[in-house]
Amino acid sequence: MTGFSAIDHAHMAHALRLAERGAYTARPNPMVGCVIALGEQRVGEGFHARAGEPHAEVHALRIAGDRARGATAYVTLEPCAHTGRTPPCTQALIAAGVARVVAAVRDPFPQVDGKGLDALRAAGIDVVSGLMEAQARALNRGFFSRIERGRPWVRVKLAMSLDGRTALRDGTSKWISSEAARADVQRWRARAGALLTASGTVLADDPHLTVRLGDDTPFAPPLRVVLDIGLATPLDSHLQDGQAPTLFIHAPDAKVSEPWRARERAWVPMQDGGLDLAATLAELARREINEVQVEAGATLAGALLRAGLVDELLLYIAPVLLGESGRPLFGGIDPVAMAQRQGFMVLEQRQIGPDLRLRLQPQPSAAAQGATPVVS
Amino acid sequence: MTGFSAIDHAHMAHALRLAERGAYTARPNPMVGCVIALGEQRVGEGFHARAGEPHAEVHALRIAGDRARGATAYVTLEPCAHTGRTPPCTQALIAAGVARVVAAVRDPFPQVDGKGLDALRAAGIDVVSGLMEAQARALNRGFFSRIERGRPWVRVKLAMSLDGRTALRDGTSKWISSEAARADVQRWRARAGALLTASGTVLADDPHLTVRLGDDTPFAPPLRVVLDIGLATPLDSHLQDGQAPTLFIHAPDAKVSEPWRARERAWVPMQDGGLDLAATLAELARREINEVQVEAGATLAGALLRAGLVDELLLYIAPVLLGESGRPLFGGIDPVAMAQRQGFMVLEQRQIGPDLRLRLQPQPSAAAQGATPVVS
Repeated sequence: MTGFSAIDHAHMAHALRLAERGAYTARPNPMVGCVIALGEQRVGEGFHARAGEPHAEVHALRIAGDRARGATAYVTLEPCAHTGRTPPCTQALIAAGVARVVAAVRDPFPQVDGKGLDALRAAGIDVVSGLMEAQARALNRGFFSRIERGRPWVRVKLAMSLDGRTALRDGTSKWISSEAARADVQRWRARAGALLTASGTVLADDPHLTVRLGDDTPFAPPLRVVLDIGLATPLDSHLQDGQAPTLFIHAPDAKVSEPWRARERAWVPMQDGGLDLAATLAELARREINEVQVEAGATLAGALLRAGLVDELLLYIAPVLLGESGRPLFGGIDPVAMAQRQGFMVLEQRQIGPDLRLRLQPQPSAAAQGATPVVS
Repeated sequence: MTGFSAIDHAHMAHALRLAERGAYTARPNPMVGCVIALGEQRVGEGFHARAGEPHAEVHALRIAGDRARGATAYVTLEPCAHTGRTPPCTQALIAAGVARVVAAVRDPFPQVDGKGLDALRAAGIDVVSGLMEAQARALNRGFFSRIERGRPWVRVKLAMSLDGRTALRDGTSKWISSEAARADVQRWRARAGALLTASGTVLADDPHLTVRLGDDTPFAPPLRVVLDIGLATPLDSHLQDGQAPTLFIHAPDAKVSEPWRARERAWVPMQDGGLDLAATLAELARREINEVQVEAGATLAGALLRAGLVDELLLYIAPVLLGESGRPLFGGIDPVAMAQRQGFMVLEQRQIGPDLRLRLQPQPSAAAQGATPVVS
């Protein structure tokens, strides 16, 4: 995109930062930020905090008041043109007399999808889109994934030792990583619409999968999702404690005994001896989950990776050695030739207390790209 | 240390940067930098480039000329008071009429060891020591290790996949890491007095273990050292090509056949079925090796780590998966309980091309500290 000034960029960057303030609460809606400006001067700003509450534009226009007349509105997502739980934002922008609207990215949601920008143009407003589009898409990667691909953005969280092991040979894995890393995980959990685990992990570790931020920052509790083929999760496990909404995904032929009838459940087909993971993600998208954080063991992580369903790997590395008999990072990943190896791109690296945190994005594997596997 | 001004710190920091310019060439001597200053103004500076050539102080005094009279000399290491391959620096400083000498650290070399500072004091010069001592010791960690501990500083270089594997199950390991990482390794090699490998690695990979910097930066070729119990390194291997000085370390009872008589050799006792690693390092210290870079496989790396002989781990992580049957990072490291795990401190992390590079320092293991191992 061309034709945007440095002032345009500065206001949109600010709007993106505002949007992010809804990271823990806006879902299933996208995070949106809005700045109303007269030249360099910001006269109004806002973000969307919570579904059902006013959109970013409405907050910003309220602050701007009469100064919105003739101003430019910067929005990180195309304004809505339909009446959902709140009236359309296009109407509010038109009524306020805004002269120009700069949107970062078109809203792929079928009820918007260009109609918001059209409505503004029809009202004589100067409308441009595409400023900092990549950043705006990245901010709401979960929302875009759900609307455009019909599945949530999948972030797999794993903690491993320096030598790539997730547990000792006997399965001991608790507290591989530091307190600082575990606190960091809580903040990633708070961004997720759902936390996905498997019954094997529940049996081994009995996790809570709740968000514990350690302060009073508000957040919407993520849905706890358990892959449990035969509904075998112990009734006294933490995931059965009712402390957060919980969904059990099981096989079509699972026996639903009495205590399970009251549980939130969904079934998906079986595939290759496990639950169909693509169908599982489609089910979560239907339930308006934008981002899923997977917190399980090597088996589920490996199965998702093999199925090409991992969008991002959040990897904590504790600088310790768990040794050559330790449990591997991903199950079922075992290339016999270099050409078959799964590659990643490092998106970010930082130190979290004594540990390292990497964010990585899987690359299409050589095998998946059609290279001939060399069998040794 | 107290009593040093901001100007003192700035000059010493500059002297340390100068010293580092000798990193590829000064050995077996320590790297030394010197700044001659009148207040803020630097009137002379120099570093020690090569054994047998003038010391840093002499270079700096030459540049300073008459302006050295009444000036302060900042030196990163105590000036020598003995005649080695060059005359004592203390004499040159006294003759130049320097009023004050600030040294970063005392030289532990037995022929200096305080005598340099004493000689300066005896001549009426104001002498202080200890400014940026930690940095000065870190710069010459190899030299200090050799003089104070009787063994070189041992840096183990390893390249592994994201899942902690150094090779595929069939041993394939070449080109795990990127071209950028391999170029980086060359610069670390150029700092080392010796590159240590094992005959198993020679048989598997036939490495050159030469320094290829890709430009005309001068360097002293590191000694290639091969641990070869029975002198079985193939005569046509790159390590037998005479392209760099090479030392073969063997068992006391190794048969020295004809072609081996002309080779540089040393024997060390056997221990636990392998060559005595502590004795090997002592032998290298006797040969004036300050820093050893270990470039071998998991077996030697693991044996050094178990023996507590690793000072630093230089770890390249390629963001690929080599899978659960891949070769481990360290051989013979296999704790059965968390309390026994070997820990590290992360000294530095950075991205090198698509790969990550970590520098880590082993921590005393819990077991070595006397914790009770919990056997599962």
